[in-house]
Amino acid sequence: MRFALPFFLAASIGCAGTEHVASHVHVDEPGLVSLATEAGRTLLAQNLDDADAIPLLSHFESQRYGSYCGIASSVIVMNALGREAPPNPALGTFRYNTQESVVGDAETASVAPAERINTQGMTLDELGGILRAHSLDVTVVHGADIELDSFRTQIREGVAREGDFLLVNYFRPGVGQQGGGHISPIAAYDEETDRALILDVAQYRYPPAWVEIETLWSAIRTTDDSSGLTRGFVVASAR
Amino acid sequence: MRFALPFFLAASIGCAGTEHVASHVHVDEPGLVSLATEAGRTLLAQNLDDADAIPLLSHFESQRYGSYCGIASSVIVMNALGREAPPNPALGTFRYNTQESVVGDAETASVAPAERINTQGMTLDELGGILRAHSLDVTVVHGADIELDSFRTQIREGVAREGDFLLVNYFRPGVGQQGGGHISPIAAYDEETDRALILDVAQYRYPPAWVEIETLWSAIRTTDDSSGLTRGFVVASAR
Repeated sequence: MRFALPFFLAASIGCAGTEHVASHVHVDEPGLVSLATEAGRTLLAQNLDDADAIPLLSHFESQRYGSYCGIASSVIVMNALGREAPPNPALGTFRYNTQESVVGDAETASVAPAERINTQGMTLDELGGILRAHSLDVTVVHGADIELDSFRTQIREGVAREGDFLLVNYFRPGVGQQGGGHISPIAAYDEETDRALILDVAQYRYPPAWVEIETLWSAIRTTDDSSGLTRGFVVASAR
Repeated sequence: MRFALPFFLAASIGCAGTEHVASHVHVDEPGLVSLATEAGRTLLAQNLDDADAIPLLSHFESQRYGSYCGIASSVIVMNALGREAPPNPALGTFRYNTQESVVGDAETASVAPAERINTQGMTLDELGGILRAHSLDVTVVHGADIELDSFRTQIREGVAREGDFLLVNYFRPGVGQQGGGHISPIAAYDEETDRALILDVAQYRYPPAWVEIETLWSAIRTTDDSSGLTRGFVVASAR
């Protein structure tokens, strides 16, 4: 482990293809590799055939409130999966899942009240519950329940597999960022550098970034004070 | 020209890196190549070093109303250029340009009233005017005023150049899509297939797509009934 993570008891919850083309990226940095750098861009070009990358980039959007990381991540995944959205007069006859529609609908309310999401965000189990309530098949894995090698396998295979998407709930300081708990989709994995691309939905705060799997694993094994459980990740697919 | 475009007098206005890695994409289709296809994805991987691609993908978002193609495109470009946004209590101390903030601010109102944008969208000159009113340097080029070779050069050099972005105003049927006039940013150019990647901001309607330059050129030379002028494109940079 590159990071020593002794007391990760954060006060805030959520938000508060592996076909390898060539290896000409040399990454010395121990921490994040921003997608805004040449190295980050080259890693994406080499792994753009990961099945999840283009659908997530095509439906990417920033979280519209400070506490909406889980809502924004869910909406991106719902749209990438082609989940049918409710009618929206703003779009005429077209439909698209939006953060406002998802946070305000009965499915979400059956898991967590909008008022609490608006002020505090959501826990990992609430994230899984909200996706499930919106008719998706969902697997929730807490950081405490998975070893490093299995986590790496799930990420590598998950981003390469069509029809499902990964959402990760991690502690920002664990990956070298400021903030607390956060949720975002994972778009790609690079075998050579053993890094996952987090499509950070707080676009106003951090660009997408490649994070070492071991670092990310440590950051999902932190405890979310609101649940008393570790963070983790969700795999979501259409039913 | 692949498309015969005899009477492009549309009733609706806006919305109703060239380093080449290898050539293993064979594109037979005369029309669009969707980014959702293997060919489209490979073209992006080969041209991801176009300077404009990653910043636009990182700040991509869908238009929030049927008439907001110009607003959404402007917001994406403003955020990609790092234009400072007004305070937004929803984001705490952070700032991010949003479609709501831009459509409702005094800068936009100095060019076009929100009520008209909400119902009709905007013309090419209004798009340029709104970006200029938001402190960007703007060049507006109407389709009638540019020849095919110059248009190709502007696209090829524009997407490869750092610090500015291209927004194109075209007639959807001219590129083989349903609808009327539309506005979206251009993220990349592929020399081999002579195609530009349009990051379609109506994500609920069409995925991003590679369009042949000659086809796009024809589609920007159509007349916008609201202005009586041809459509075209805008180059915007920070002042």
